[in-house]
Amino acid sequence: MSAADLAERIARSARQRTEGAEVRTADVLDWLGDRRRSNGFRVEPVPFDAQEDWSFDPVTGNLRHRSGGFFAIEGLRATVDDDPAARWEQPVLRQPEIGILGLLAKDIDGVLHLLVQAKMEPGNPGLVQLSPTVQATRSNYLRVHRGARVRYVEHFTAEHRDTLVDVLQSEHGSWFYQKANRNMVVETTADVPAHEDFRWLTVGQLGELLRHDNVVNMDARSILACLGAATTPDPELLFWITAERSRRRLATERIPLSEVGGWVREADRITRPDGRFFRVETVRVEAGNREVRSWHQPLFAPVNRGVCAFLTRRAPAGPQVLAAARVEGGFRDTVELGPTVQCQPDSHPVPPPFLAAVLGAAPDRICYEAVHAEEGGRFRDAESRYLFVEAPDDVAAAEPPPGFRWVAPERLSALLWHGNYVNVQARTLLACLTTGAAEVW
Amino acid sequence: MSAADLAERIARSARQRTEGAEVRTADVLDWLGDRRRSNGFRVEPVPFDAQEDWSFDPVTGNLRHRSGGFFAIEGLRATVDDDPAARWEQPVLRQPEIGILGLLAKDIDGVLHLLVQAKMEPGNPGLVQLSPTVQATRSNYLRVHRGARVRYVEHFTAEHRDTLVDVLQSEHGSWFYQKANRNMVVETTADVPAHEDFRWLTVGQLGELLRHDNVVNMDARSILACLGAATTPDPELLFWITAERSRRRLATERIPLSEVGGWVREADRITRPDGRFFRVETVRVEAGNREVRSWHQPLFAPVNRGVCAFLTRRAPAGPQVLAAARVEGGFRDTVELGPTVQCQPDSHPVPPPFLAAVLGAAPDRICYEAVHAEEGGRFRDAESRYLFVEAPDDVAAAEPPPGFRWVAPERLSALLWHGNYVNVQARTLLACLTTGAAEVW
Repeated sequence: MSAADLAERIARSARQRTEGAEVRTADVLDWLGDRRRSNGFRVEPVPFDAQEDWSFDPVTGNLRHRSGGFFAIEGLRATVDDDPAARWEQPVLRQPEIGILGLLAKDIDGVLHLLVQAKMEPGNPGLVQLSPTVQATRSNYLRVHRGARVRYVEHFTAEHRDTLVDVLQSEHGSWFYQKANRNMVVETTADVPAHEDFRWLTVGQLGELLRHDNVVNMDARSILACLGAATTPDPELLFWITAERSRRRLATERIPLSEVGGWVREADRITRPDGRFFRVETVRVEAGNREVRSWHQPLFAPVNRGVCAFLTRRAPAGPQVLAAARVEGGFRDTVELGPTVQCQPDSHPVPPPFLAAVLGAAPDRICYEAVHAEEGGRFRDAESRYLFVEAPDDVAAAEPPPGFRWVAPERLSALLWHGNYVNVQARTLLACLTTGAAEVW
Repeated sequence: MSAADLAERIARSARQRTEGAEVRTADVLDWLGDRRRSNGFRVEPVPFDAQEDWSFDPVTGNLRHRSGGFFAIEGLRATVDDDPAARWEQPVLRQPEIGILGLLAKDIDGVLHLLVQAKMEPGNPGLVQLSPTVQATRSNYLRVHRGARVRYVEHFTAEHRDTLVDVLQSEHGSWFYQKANRNMVVETTADVPAHEDFRWLTVGQLGELLRHDNVVNMDARSILACLGAATTPDPELLFWITAERSRRRLATERIPLSEVGGWVREADRITRPDGRFFRVETVRVEAGNREVRSWHQPLFAPVNRGVCAFLTRRAPAGPQVLAAARVEGGFRDTVELGPTVQCQPDSHPVPPPFLAAVLGAAPDRICYEAVHAEEGGRFRDAESRYLFVEAPDDVAAAEPPPGFRWVAPERLSALLWHGNYVNVQARTLLACLTTGAAEVW
């Protein structure tokens, strides 16, 4: 299939918004509510000394699973731009293995449908959200924790498969150390019945659902962002990224969690005395339909709700978003492009650039707004308001400050054919464009 | 200027092979020999206890410059694919700062010319080779070592410049820890006189010179490789790279040089008792026209000559080369594409795949062969035979083994618009194609 054919099929699926071949969009929310109620999920924090299977390493203080699998919480020391004032230490999630985030695709009645799962993750607001068909760490599908096999994973690991998307994308550089997951869309022509926790939805239905708070999970959003068309690279954009990566400097060092300065371990949390950013806690999870029926695990819990927003403007060649060249401690390549604003406002005594323009925007300048949470398998209630906001006229007319650049959104989407260019928060916003949840003119 | 225009200008410059606007190609070798003779360069190894400005850190044993700048030699522990047998320790060059490798371009008489320098680097065979206009570490152009300013660097750091190439590319993953340099081509319309150590040459002249041993240095080759046309990405190629990056695993840890197992520090070298791979040594350099007139520095000196070769075949759609998905300890993204064969044969008791096909090729199947050295500022006499070799018929007809893939060379060139895809040895071979030094049918 040619790239143009695929782009047209995705566009056609994105136009189908109120119903798919299987289910009306309005009924998906009811189904999701039903899945939430019927499974008796319970998540509650436990003190560290009551956690099962996880423990602090006696030498390093790192928090690890006894299998050595899953992930670990270690320490990170980071310095940005050789600036002593931009030097910090923090707990960081380390999960060097590459997981699969996969959406299974199928042509039903001439329209591309994607198989989504109503999946419980302990950190999700509401616990159950729409997730990709497969969301599997390597430990998961190698069954390190002796759970059930991952349903549908064989479509993504088959040697001969019809791949539409397959790219390694970074995850939260402020919380993960150099984490990447494989974002995949694989098409099948086989008769694949949807298990009761799964539904076939069109791209447009997912777009409609992205207008609701806390319905489509981060992994699904990340994959949907990667459905943009491949184009020849924009040299000026690539040159600018090179210049930013050369201008900025990021030095990091993994350190033992017990040596992280500025954080304290209490009975049930690792936290900062000044209360900023996030805390580490362990929860006990009871689940009906997950791989194992009950388990403990640590989560990062941000202390404030975040704001992730692209400012937009009309340029002669079409709409543009204001991308920020961000340095995050866990990035592999120093800089990735993020939204114009990405922060927890209450954790920043000095507001970052453009935050006021976003928070102060008149309602008629807000093109899109919804609350979405980051991955519920690692982050607890990590909600952010995601927005597209029409830039104030003076901002739209001015040369952006260093580290910011106006970019056509389809140029950012095209970068997603490669990894390490567009961060996970920007991908949530781009997913709103590929699915038609948001329209910037 | 459109990408198509640039590609046509490069192609036109590549056709101009026997003379440029300034100098006949045949005379460049004489000029280079003249520069070698007239400057009185001397390089000689010194014992570590006689080295000036460099010393072993008393705690870590790392070999460092007293300024803290330039680079350092530390230790690396690496494990590939969780395989205890593929676990090793080694000295590694660490230079986190990003340097500029820049070629200045100029239209002369309607043909694109590039300004190359006859530059001495202490590790070069023959000492003086053709180098980019600018080859500057950050320490260089910030003048950490109080040397002369870097000639022509202002063209590459100017805020408003006409950039043709600007991309971060990796360097030797077996010797450097996650090193990247900025490969740049910047065009000027100003009247830029060539200093006596510099000459304006066409792309085709550089191609002719690449047929000679040890004339065009590694940095120039790396930039020349990046002159390929940008195209829409080839999804199948990118998906394969993603799969290789997910299939392979690379775990690395920086360790103190003094803790590196299997290597011993003698009076004048750090070496392996089994004599394999390379040794670390320090040299004293005397130079006439370099930034400072004399200095000491460590170099990595490979103990054997290497072989870097692409096997080629005719496919229905055009010529292809057999790319290898290589895992090297210093890569940021686990896997980059390298030549079919890349090794020091004498350091490998078990020959790597396809080495026999390269070494045993009949002369009429060798499309290109020359000896080139790796960067003479860090490596001493690090020579490899670089070859394109027509694959044996059975190899050309068979499905390649895991980790190898037939790729059109222009597809590899297109990947060079991004970093971390194509390693520095493959770039030398691709430079032979962009400049017309080699033709694979």
